[in-house]
Amino acid sequence: MPTEKPEPRAASLVFQRTLEFRTSRQGLLDVTREVAAVVAESGVRQGICTTFLQHTSASLVIQENADPAVLRDLERWMSKLAPESDEYEHDDEGPDDMPGHLRSAVTRTNEVIPVTDGRLALGRWQALYLWEHRSAPHVRRLVVTILGAG
Amino acid sequence: MPTEKPEPRAASLVFQRTLEFRTSRQGLLDVTREVAAVVAESGVRQGICTTFLQHTSASLVIQENADPAVLRDLERWMSKLAPESDEYEHDDEGPDDMPGHLRSAVTRTNEVIPVTDGRLALGRWQALYLWEHRSAPHVRRLVVTILGAG
Amino acid sequence: MPTEKPEPRAASLVFQRTLEFRTSRQGLLDVTREVAAVVAESGVRQGICTTFLQHTSASLVIQENADPAVLRDLERWMSKLAPESDEYEHDDEGPDDMPGHLRSAVTRTNEVIPVTDGRLALGRWQALYLWEHRSAPHVRRLVVTILGAG
Repeated sequence: MPTEKPEPRAASLVFQRTLEFRTSRQGLLDVTREVAAVVAESGVRQGICTTFLQHTSASLVIQENADPAVLRDLERWMSKLAPESDEYEHDDEGPDDMPGHLRSAVTRTNEVIPVTDGRLALGRWQALYLWEHRSAPHVRRLVVTILGAG
Repeated sequence: MPTEKPEPRAASLVFQRTLEFRTSRQGLLDVTREVAAVVAESGVRQGICTTFLQHTSASLVIQENADPAVLRDLERWMSKLAPESDEYEHDDEGPDDMPGHLRSAVTRTNEVIPVTDGRLALGRWQALYLWEHRSAPHVRRLVVTILGAG
Repeated sequence: MPTEKPEPRAASLVFQRTLEFRTSRQGLLDVTREVAAVVAESGVRQGICTTFLQHTSASLVIQENADPAVLRDLERWMSKLAPESDEYEHDDEGPDDMPGHLRSAVTRTNEVIPVTDGRLALGRWQALYLWEHRSAPHVRRLVVTILGAG
């Protein structure tokens, strides 16, 4: 059921910025604060914030930001679902590369988050995570594009 | 191959509304009709409709709307893929909470659907489902943001 | 960290085109070139390109475009994760239909890719794939909607 009575606004802005994150090992990195800063900078008050990761052995996921055990359980479960194995045909980039592609395939390359009153309209317990699937350090590029009304 | 010869239009509208849904148990709830009503209200004729669920133990998925057995098979399969178990470290919100986070991680927090001629451009057999992963009733908030040309 | 100092632009264009692809069997079909052509045609220089597949037994995924062994490993892994089986209740459209719905549920119905300088801002090793999950030939419709500044 509707919870408010909104009016259409003139959508007139687009803003784009590429963020770089340095990862040090496999794991989930909370990038919410950095993305929220781009939203603030954009001047968009109502619209959408799209985030796109330019890689195929790291991915995006929105998960709980409260209990760190959730992230540990998620990582353990995924490491069984798409395990390191010597059965992959693609193995010349190391044993952690092909599982990284599999883990990316079932999570996300992009997430689209609404912008309301100039801020990311995440739920109370939500955060945006960059999930590094490789064991060595990497620089990961996240393209943030915001569209909407100022 | 192209099937039509479109022209660019001036994109000038953004419209946002938050819908609330009351779930009663685990399962897939068809929310297509409610989202389509927001599209109609927006006045957008061509563009996109983005839907974002503000939760991490429920998720979104677009699936077949014809044979209800598809949804039952999907639920049975997912309950084996991410089962209830006493092996999770995160267990203080009940045995159905951590599997809910896992099931959300491999389905979607957002779906983006095109708008054509003022309506959701879903395929003939597609519907948008809110997938409740918790066994107790919950109120779930879905933020619908529509951008495009009027 | 930021890598550039962008300015907000006036977002004024929306462009939509439906592409059709003929698939011949299960597998991943690179559709990047066809989608990139729609971006070029749109006149949008900065914004987003959204792609939406109007089907529930085929899906979208962004994966590595370099070593074809990655795609073969991905297909083998997915065929074990969501196997053909006589245990599905939904079986009247053939043994490959229900696994197709499952595989679609854990990959994507839509992907959103940024547009920068008039082109898809994919990473160096990324391509957009249409993943056919049925064994018989199908015609698959992909709705491409581009929003942004010209």
